[in-house]
Amino acid sequence: MPVIGAIELKQTVHDLFTLLGATGDEVQRLQDHLVGSNLVGHDSHGVRVIPDYVHMIRGGDIVLGADLEIVTESPTHAVLDGNWGVGQLMGWRAAQLAIEKAKQGTLSAVSLRNCSHIGRLGEYTQMIADQGLVGFVTVNGHGGAQGVAPWGGLERRLSVNPMSYAVPASDGVLMIDISPTVVAAGKVAVKALRGEPVPEGWIVDSEGRSTTDANALNGPPPGSLIPVGGHKGFALGLIVDILSGALSGGGCSRSDADRWGNATFILAINPEAFVGQQQFETEVREFLDYVKSSRPAPGFTEVLIPGEPENREKERRMKEGIFVEDRTWDTITEIRDELKSDP
Amino acid sequence: MPVIGAIELKQTVHDLFTLLGATGDEVQRLQDHLVGSNLVGHDSHGVRVIPDYVHMIRGGDIVLGADLEIVTESPTHAVLDGNWGVGQLMGWRAAQLAIEKAKQGTLSAVSLRNCSHIGRLGEYTQMIADQGLVGFVTVNGHGGAQGVAPWGGLERRLSVNPMSYAVPASDGVLMIDISPTVVAAGKVAVKALRGEPVPEGWIVDSEGRSTTDANALNGPPPGSLIPVGGHKGFALGLIVDILSGALSGGGCSRSDADRWGNATFILAINPEAFVGQQQFETEVREFLDYVKSSRPAPGFTEVLIPGEPENREKERRMKEGIFVEDRTWDTITEIRDELKSDP
Repeated sequence: MPVIGAIELKQTVHDLFTLLGATGDEVQRLQDHLVGSNLVGHDSHGVRVIPDYVHMIRGGDIVLGADLEIVTESPTHAVLDGNWGVGQLMGWRAAQLAIEKAKQGTLSAVSLRNCSHIGRLGEYTQMIADQGLVGFVTVNGHGGAQGVAPWGGLERRLSVNPMSYAVPASDGVLMIDISPTVVAAGKVAVKALRGEPVPEGWIVDSEGRSTTDANALNGPPPGSLIPVGGHKGFALGLIVDILSGALSGGGCSRSDADRWGNATFILAINPEAFVGQQQFETEVREFLDYVKSSRPAPGFTEVLIPGEPENREKERRMKEGIFVEDRTWDTITEIRDELKSDP
Repeated sequence: MPVIGAIELKQTVHDLFTLLGATGDEVQRLQDHLVGSNLVGHDSHGVRVIPDYVHMIRGGDIVLGADLEIVTESPTHAVLDGNWGVGQLMGWRAAQLAIEKAKQGTLSAVSLRNCSHIGRLGEYTQMIADQGLVGFVTVNGHGGAQGVAPWGGLERRLSVNPMSYAVPASDGVLMIDISPTVVAAGKVAVKALRGEPVPEGWIVDSEGRSTTDANALNGPPPGSLIPVGGHKGFALGLIVDILSGALSGGGCSRSDADRWGNATFILAINPEAFVGQQQFETEVREFLDYVKSSRPAPGFTEVLIPGEPENREKERRMKEGIFVEDRTWDTITEIRDELKSDP
């Protein structure tokens, strides 16, 4: 179970995707995004995904060097077509476009279709908030990758449909990155990879029975992630599927999706236009300080704001390195070494 | 426990607020909104609130006949000041403004401050979706009305912070109206009013202990509503407080709020600008049909989409009438009769 330093891990990711033929921009985004996800403790979106990405690149599901096309555009919105290029680059460019448009006005929305997995949504909302804007990003599975049964149903009908919000505060950023299920699918996959059971309440099997067997999620027959709060998480999953899939033209979850990816919705709001940047950021800072001042509940030593655990984990892992499962590390280094000897 | 027909109930509301001195527009919005909330089964936002409203009008906390002021405006956004007027009218006008702006372009955001309780958010998002737009509305307690402790904390630091989404589909509307707590405060208040216990898991007491005593929510000492999914509901509550309070200038939850109301955020998105109205609505309809086709789970006979239970309840109550608690009905009719005899 190797512990790899962030710099070495980035270099390994860099070498592997360069050898595979990715462009300089693609390599840069992949290494920063994947290792960045590991650094903040979101291993499910970290280098664990590389073997899948390699498989998808080789199978043509992720297209290296693809162009980002503008389907329609105005000063406040755009619909983009990613031509199934590398999601981490397409998502980054879409977020940049949303930032430019919102900065010049009041708010903007950018939709992105035909795009492979864009990864951890918090990266994009954080980019937006770092520019002083409120960011909101959602993705669905581009019609596929369904893992969630509706509230009251047994058969999967929705992708996991995460959402992220980030807000600038006068000395930092509030960053929220959640799925409307009790846990994200990636967390169950990590448990399955490590041969560990999942806690009660994460998933149900194909007959709707609670189970701790991580493998019951995908079956066969497939089970389901449990929506958080039952009908509430189900409702949030519906709206994310629609914002992401229907506004982009990538499509909502459906029975005949022939590939999966991330249809994406990005919203950026410029506080300067509403109440002025300084008033907004000061208000947010004072609010977060007030929230943190609540007396801790039994079992807690302090109230943490979303984004704080990630920042602390990043500091720790920058010093101590990143834990990578044997299977992931072995596969990554094998692929890299094979490419080196037989490019 | 009287059962009142919708028409009689509207007339009663109409008479009471007219006698109190409300304008014709205010009376119209109040009767439609309050009885409309009862009709769809959301009794917590129905005529139950009238005694409080009367108290607030008499105390000057709700200002009859107040003007809606435009603080700042552009083709895509506005910040409005409600001058503490009737929330149901101010919210309705703000939503109308968001609709006009989004219809002429791509999307719009309208913020509203110094506004009393706007009531059930689903009314406003439904208005927006009825015009073919995607609607999103959030409110906080205008800094006050705190009822939720942060995740990991004991002392209340957030208002309930509900959110509503609605989406047009080719033969109807998807309408979501949820709080990021296990239940809304109004539901606990209804239980307390009826002298019933609350189910385990709705609220905790002032020391963070689970309780079924509906009165433990407000104490003293005050307990807390439980955020849905723990840190997830807490995170959603934070973003709603910020969108509503910080973008409007009404302020986020804070220690020194001297009155409560609803600072409001309204977003409207025009699907026509993204993929065309027809393609969007057809995609949403097919998605919802697909979701509903999931085999029912044990204990369910079908999968219901958010908004369907409300529509069914409305049909039923239009026929069968509206159940109003004795205490509420007696108070409303007493106030009306007093005003009639001594205006």
